[in-house]
Amino acid sequence: MNPELLLSRIRVVLCRPSHPGNIGAAARAMKTMGLSRLYLVAPKQFPDPEADTRATGAVDLLQQATVTGTLSEALAGSRFAMALSARQRDLGPEIGQPRESVGRLLAEAEQGEVALVFGNETMGLSNEEIFHCQAAVTIPTNPDFSSLNLGAAVQVLCYECRMTAFSGKPPVASQGVTAFVAPAASHEEVEGLYAHLEAVMTETGFFNPEQPGRLLPKLRRLFGRSRLERDEVNILRGILASTQIKTGHGRKG
Amino acid sequence: MNPELLLSRIRVVLCRPSHPGNIGAAARAMKTMGLSRLYLVAPKQFPDPEADTRATGAVDLLQQATVTGTLSEALAGSRFAMALSARQRDLGPEIGQPRESVGRLLAEAEQGEVALVFGNETMGLSNEEIFHCQAAVTIPTNPDFSSLNLGAAVQVLCYECRMTAFSGKPPVASQGVTAFVAPAASHEEVEGLYAHLEAVMTETGFFNPEQPGRLLPKLRRLFGRSRLERDEVNILRGILASTQIKTGHGRKG
Repeated sequence: MNPELLLSRIRVVLCRPSHPGNIGAAARAMKTMGLSRLYLVAPKQFPDPEADTRATGAVDLLQQATVTGTLSEALAGSRFAMALSARQRDLGPEIGQPRESVGRLLAEAEQGEVALVFGNETMGLSNEEIFHCQAAVTIPTNPDFSSLNLGAAVQVLCYECRMTAFSGKPPVASQGVTAFVAPAASHEEVEGLYAHLEAVMTETGFFNPEQPGRLLPKLRRLFGRSRLERDEVNILRGILASTQIKTGHGRKG
Repeated sequence: MNPELLLSRIRVVLCRPSHPGNIGAAARAMKTMGLSRLYLVAPKQFPDPEADTRATGAVDLLQQATVTGTLSEALAGSRFAMALSARQRDLGPEIGQPRESVGRLLAEAEQGEVALVFGNETMGLSNEEIFHCQAAVTIPTNPDFSSLNLGAAVQVLCYECRMTAFSGKPPVASQGVTAFVAPAASHEEVEGLYAHLEAVMTETGFFNPEQPGRLLPKLRRLFGRSRLERDEVNILRGILASTQIKTGHGRKG
């Protein structure tokens, strides 16, 4: 299925969010990753200017958000719901890692509407809310500091959704500039450089062919690693030639 | 190498951040993922109460942050720097996808200190700053709305670092509760349920053995999908038996 269409089938449901700023941050996080359907279950304060500010260009998602009284209403018409939960609940669905869980979510989205369900900033999801979900996912955090911000949690899971929908390789904005690619130097060109370098070093006395030591292999290792381009070889040889003219070893016109 | 040690070798460098709140959000994002070394290059305002507020329990990272005047100073002593950049720069390092790029970053971290470099909220990184980095990474966003918040970008990349450091399976907090696992029902037990169900449906007239249609296969499909547990079979048969007693078909004591 078209990745964009798949992402459009994912509802992000925030249960009882306390801080309007987090609602805005969640909207912005969703939109950057191509998700658009925000559901708010009993938000403490919404709409709110702080939500608009944090949403920046994603205010349209706030305007189109569906506000409900219960999670059950927010899930109406969906076929699969996955809860974000920091810990395993007794009798609750088993908690999965993000990547495999999002894979399952998108497989369900191929068939219809699905939901990612987030709890309150302080309390998380209630057991009753968890039991409305068929699966659960956690974001593995530092055991010494697991206090993930709500907007940040939405960002991470929406990012995983986009990565998975595009099979790990979403297109990136290139804005018309591609990485600079120049013709690689041929073997002969690179060998010509080494010979030139050796000649110059010998002329200057830096290199003694009678006691070569490891100097030449070290230089080969250095330039070998950098996979020289033709232009670069020409530049380096130009520098070498310029020193030869200065020291009187250059070809005379 | 120990994943925690590996994560401790990653510097997060914010270049010219404008909003103290984003510095706090970045610190919180880092700490949740086990990173700890924050560098600030010419921050507009720092320290600042707004940074402390957004950092919540990660104020220690702000207190230990290194503030420098230039990116070059922030990279002193590191062996590899990766820039976050939304677009390919002419002659700049080629931009990679997050997962493979973070893999490269951590491979370098095995050898020594590395840095993840983030630009200003509005302007991103300057070309000069990008040229201080040996690699570049982008977070693939919705082409219609690529305005990722700075704290959110730090969160996503730190999350990828943690995932990669722990080979995709960081430990999750279980808090002593494991997923409820009950003995699965045996084939005979499930068949016993189907037989019981058929008997009850026949007794009630819901099912006509002369014209069976597709009712039984549909029920088998339903219960087959749910991989019944022994207790669940017992519960269902208990319900069936209770209806039989009510309708006079149950076994008389």
